[in-house]
Amino acid sequence: MTNRLQQLRATLAARELPAMLLTAPTSRRYISGFTGSAGALLISAEAAFLLTDGRYLIRAAAEAPHFTLREVRPPARPMTALIADLASELGIKRLGFEAAVMTVAEHRQYTAALGNAIELVPTENIVEELRMVKDEEEIALLRRAAAITDAALAAVLPALTPTMTEREAAWRLEVALHDLGAEGPSFPIIVAAGRNSARPHHTPGDDVLGEGQPIIIDMGARLDGYHADLTRTIVLGQPDDTFRAVYAATLKAQQAAMQALRPGLPWSEADAIARRVIGEAGYAEGIAHSLGHGVGLVIHEAPWLRITAPDAPPSPPLQAGMVTSIEPGIYLPEWGGVRIEDLVLITTNGYEVLSQAPK
Amino acid sequence: MTNRLQQLRATLAARELPAMLLTAPTSRRYISGFTGSAGALLISAEAAFLLTDGRYLIRAAAEAPHFTLREVRPPARPMTALIADLASELGIKRLGFEAAVMTVAEHRQYTAALGNAIELVPTENIVEELRMVKDEEEIALLRRAAAITDAALAAVLPALTPTMTEREAAWRLEVALHDLGAEGPSFPIIVAAGRNSARPHHTPGDDVLGEGQPIIIDMGARLDGYHADLTRTIVLGQPDDTFRAVYAATLKAQQAAMQALRPGLPWSEADAIARRVIGEAGYAEGIAHSLGHGVGLVIHEAPWLRITAPDAPPSPPLQAGMVTSIEPGIYLPEWGGVRIEDLVLITTNGYEVLSQAPK
Repeated sequence: MTNRLQQLRATLAARELPAMLLTAPTSRRYISGFTGSAGALLISAEAAFLLTDGRYLIRAAAEAPHFTLREVRPPARPMTALIADLASELGIKRLGFEAAVMTVAEHRQYTAALGNAIELVPTENIVEELRMVKDEEEIALLRRAAAITDAALAAVLPALTPTMTEREAAWRLEVALHDLGAEGPSFPIIVAAGRNSARPHHTPGDDVLGEGQPIIIDMGARLDGYHADLTRTIVLGQPDDTFRAVYAATLKAQQAAMQALRPGLPWSEADAIARRVIGEAGYAEGIAHSLGHGVGLVIHEAPWLRITAPDAPPSPPLQAGMVTSIEPGIYLPEWGGVRIEDLVLITTNGYEVLSQAPK
Repeated sequence: MTNRLQQLRATLAARELPAMLLTAPTSRRYISGFTGSAGALLISAEAAFLLTDGRYLIRAAAEAPHFTLREVRPPARPMTALIADLASELGIKRLGFEAAVMTVAEHRQYTAALGNAIELVPTENIVEELRMVKDEEEIALLRRAAAITDAALAAVLPALTPTMTEREAAWRLEVALHDLGAEGPSFPIIVAAGRNSARPHHTPGDDVLGEGQPIIIDMGARLDGYHADLTRTIVLGQPDDTFRAVYAATLKAQQAAMQALRPGLPWSEADAIARRVIGEAGYAEGIAHSLGHGVGLVIHEAPWLRITAPDAPPSPPLQAGMVTSIEPGIYLPEWGGVRIEDLVLITTNGYEVLSQAPK
């Protein structure tokens, strides 16, 4: 944690920002270790304050020993007033904030509390860019989360039957994740059978898994706040010709994109490669989402593996230590869909697939 | 849903707002019925558009039949550009937005897309105020969610033992919620034993439930998007004298606050009543949070039953049809805590307790 705080301070120095207000839950957790649901960090070159309310004081003291704790007690001592007091004591004239997190209403409240003497400076992606590249502890957690996910799927697959509902299958996967040590699912588990699988984000319902039709299973284990993400598309019984063709095209797209992964590859290029393969197979119309996303303290985070507009600035490069999903999909509304997703770690000279579930 | 859309349009007319952009997930769901995780509504006196991406087109068409569907397809057709095009087509000059939801960064993007011809007007609580008062369908769902919660607790209580961990107890409660028909827990279930119960928002861990010490259980079922919320504090074996005194004071505070509930009571007054009772019992220092919060599509929503600052404007009145938690708590860091929470419906002449779990 002290290392992360140092990295943040180096970033602030490079941007000539004397201090930063962090209000995103993931920023709080990443920089301080504090896991409570409410609070803020105020960080300058010398000071590091954690502000939270009475529900979390004991936890905050235990989890964030390197931070000075201050109690928010609305209505007499709301967060905005406490931040204004501390900023004033520290002699801060310019205070960065997270513009992609702070709402317009909160911004108005902070502006009122800080007055004219302290300028609020919008910033974006400061902590998110630190979080993109995982350290060893994070990679170890993601590796374990992926292994639990693989094991949970393997444990449940043999029990799936054509008469089981999507909902029941999703619940069995959730129980397996728990029994294998996950603190919970990374997101509501998707089980989408038949034409439901044409909806990339289907909610499992009372439809049965059926025979001979595609079943998309999208799931992940959460472990100490870190998320895994895995998708497999299966068929109970004999697949039809459409399945064979669509599955082959999806897998080929995933393999082509993966083989290009290495530090330096623009984020958009991996998606472009997968799209080309799917287009060549004649399924360009079946693409409904981008190729992948970073995974960490948030299930969807940078890097964003998606094509950019022709006039957009070039996409940033992949870096060693990034962990991203690679999940091409093809969706045919009247038939169903296929998606194949693995978690991949970018290494110094290529990539390593963290997911081990068979395809 | 059409009724809710009409109510929204009446509110917009009263505020002289020609159109409204809704970006909060709960606003989308409440006004349109659409349950997807991404999208926006654009609503004027005549038009009602739902904008979402390829993952959700099929679901959106099924769930929101009264809305005209438009597909967002970034990067070529991002949400901001589509909103700008539609607003321009509709001849809108002033467009309300949800200032407590839209981030500073999003606001900048919308401002850039809309240009000078269309003014973005910050609003707060427009849909939240409609959502505060529940209709019959919502009350029926909350009633069922509360009943499932009661039944899950009743099913698990006899199985709790002093050597069981908090984590295991929480998991059994989650399984019971599922088996009784909940779509999931309303929030991560809290089981806090002994001194852990002094932390109002403790995360269940490897500590065992123990004998003779307070155990706070805070849980709820989610049903069709609606949340229940219930807290009981129990002891396995014989409670000590502190427990008897603290429990009696907490229960007395809850009963005193409840008995005052009726349409017209200021939100802050219920909290003030509970605080007075706890203060008279000598535990004023043990109060760590406000008395209660509304419950509906969001687990914490208006009305907010909390005291206000002396110079704050008067607290709004309770209204028939509101559903709120009543949950006083007393927390003694070296000993533990007690919290007792029920869901309560405000009726035309008083209140009805929706939770039936014994105390």
